[in-house]
Amino acid sequence: MANNKISQTTKKLSQIFNSEKQPAIFFDKNVSTIEENNSLLDGQTDVPVLDPHDLLVEVQAVSVNPVDTKLRQTGVASKIKILGYDAFGIVKNTGKDVTRFHAGDRVYYAGTTQRPGSNEKFQAVDERLVGRAPEKLNKSEIAAMPLTSITAYEILVDQLGLRFQNHAADGKNMLVINGAGGVGSVLLQMAAYLGINLSVTAHSSESIEWLKKYSVDKIYDYENIDETLADQKFDYIVFLYDPALYWDVAIKHIKPYGQLVSIVGTNKPLNMGPLKNIAVQFKWEYMFAKSDFNHNILSQGQALDKIAILLDAGILKTTLNKTFDLINAENLRQAYKLVESGRMQGKVVLNGPFDKALK
Amino acid sequence: MANNKISQTTKKLSQIFNSEKQPAIFFDKNVSTIEENNSLLDGQTDVPVLDPHDLLVEVQAVSVNPVDTKLRQTGVASKIKILGYDAFGIVKNTGKDVTRFHAGDRVYYAGTTQRPGSNEKFQAVDERLVGRAPEKLNKSEIAAMPLTSITAYEILVDQLGLRFQNHAADGKNMLVINGAGGVGSVLLQMAAYLGINLSVTAHSSESIEWLKKYSVDKIYDYENIDETLADQKFDYIVFLYDPALYWDVAIKHIKPYGQLVSIVGTNKPLNMGPLKNIAVQFKWEYMFAKSDFNHNILSQGQALDKIAILLDAGILKTTLNKTFDLINAENLRQAYKLVESGRMQGKVVLNGPFDKALK
Repeated sequence: MANNKISQTTKKLSQIFNSEKQPAIFFDKNVSTIEENNSLLDGQTDVPVLDPHDLLVEVQAVSVNPVDTKLRQTGVASKIKILGYDAFGIVKNTGKDVTRFHAGDRVYYAGTTQRPGSNEKFQAVDERLVGRAPEKLNKSEIAAMPLTSITAYEILVDQLGLRFQNHAADGKNMLVINGAGGVGSVLLQMAAYLGINLSVTAHSSESIEWLKKYSVDKIYDYENIDETLADQKFDYIVFLYDPALYWDVAIKHIKPYGQLVSIVGTNKPLNMGPLKNIAVQFKWEYMFAKSDFNHNILSQGQALDKIAILLDAGILKTTLNKTFDLINAENLRQAYKLVESGRMQGKVVLNGPFDKALK
Repeated sequence: MANNKISQTTKKLSQIFNSEKQPAIFFDKNVSTIEENNSLLDGQTDVPVLDPHDLLVEVQAVSVNPVDTKLRQTGVASKIKILGYDAFGIVKNTGKDVTRFHAGDRVYYAGTTQRPGSNEKFQAVDERLVGRAPEKLNKSEIAAMPLTSITAYEILVDQLGLRFQNHAADGKNMLVINGAGGVGSVLLQMAAYLGINLSVTAHSSESIEWLKKYSVDKIYDYENIDETLADQKFDYIVFLYDPALYWDVAIKHIKPYGQLVSIVGTNKPLNMGPLKNIAVQFKWEYMFAKSDFNHNILSQGQALDKIAILLDAGILKTTLNKTFDLINAENLRQAYKLVESGRMQGKVVLNGPFDKALK
């Protein structure tokens, strides 16, 4: 029965789109540098079949995150050849158990690394990972947001245990290490909404300039950070850069009963001992762990719904910084180069349509 | 005014006890080994004056914890010369702001390392750190419990975020590293009450025998633990021994979104990186951090009140293993030797009266 259902859906899709094939951009993990032309390639792939909880989404804008560049270099499950973990699009079809959306709905999401990503025209995504898109933002402004917003939301709610409400954390203070990137730019806005007093480090004059538009108390150049922090102590320290490089800062500047969160991994062992007698907790935030292990995945769709409301209300602003028109391998390579430089403020987005495939 | 109040209280006490001096046992951090006779000395000290939230307690039984031996060796705030972080006793007097207790009440507590400990006949302790003693247990059975019970309670409630109710964590499983000591012996009982399926490691045949009285699913000899655990994964792993020595076991056997808690510090850096993509959290439990930093100290008195009810109901059993009659330096040295051996199952208690002082 299930197989019949799926093959019927596939047939129906091929009728809708006059083809069982669609444009997509592939990666080859054996090509090490993004500068090589074959690191990302225009091509075509099958229109996906839908599982019961899936939406079929026509992708209209995608953004690039550091996780794309890491997965391109290290590879993921061997069957996955299509990256892309941020999308805005329109629902074209729904699996038989879908309840949250209908065809025609405008949606945004970060999806999962367990299935082909958003660098294809028609993508299948579990509805529980999907949010209703903001209405007042354009495609690019929306596509910039999902992965970083979910990550920032989970730092505050899942890891730090805060309520996601205005003034919910009044009186608390936070140090954000490397705050001008994609996650930092939305985390600072969300944390300010919760009432948290913010100190943030940045790595370049462009980044420091970028950060001035946010409600930030202090911006520190990352050089001599320990000296400029003096004797300040923080309730929360969030690492958006290798925590090993800032570990001594953390030990010195975290309050008793404070919390440390990192979204960036490290190969270096961390000196945890000094945190014992001050009862400090350490947490990793990795948003794809939820879909990797089927852990409360609906929470991500629900978070995106809340975030869309705050974006429409102007309480959160898009972190979009740079846009390429046309989604194709050439533009995607340019976007990857910007992200890999580590010097990108906010987000880079490729705005549809898909180009240079199915010629 | 406040000074007058205190000096009046002091005067009153000296009248009650016909002396301003009382028996106490002192330590000298410059004496490195407990075997030396002057490592702990009988003596006398002033009857303490009371702060507004203080109880004056006549101590009738004390137990020894690993923290006593550590503080004896490393020293604490230089003015503190009296150890002892577990007591059963009777309230003799109360500070002016005390609301939770009256003179004559039977109480138990672990106190704080910021003030003289329970190795003195009359001890001042903040009422918020104190619980009403169980009614059905004897002095020694009660004195065995406070510090370890608060630690185990905080592991479950503060660190793992569980409700302290029967069946609150049904379906979860936990690996307890080194479970036959003081904290382990009560943690296993509390975790079983919450419905957690328990695996525990032990270091000797005596410890394995001791553990058989608890509701434990599997007992592992600590040798070859990784081999005998096979491919099991746990929601929670609790280190009651240096976590560095069991870190590879933890990385291999913690579930995604699992939690690691340690009560024992380590000088070795910990390889945190492998926990990132499985979103595992790491937390330190150190019960004295609350009183060190005045962080929600009433929660400790309230925890002891709940624990007393469960002890009286027979849901929790005392972890008392060995008792010395008379509280004096000689018996205390014997108790320290047992604790320092690292081979003690459950708890050792000294049962009053205070002896060999004020001769």
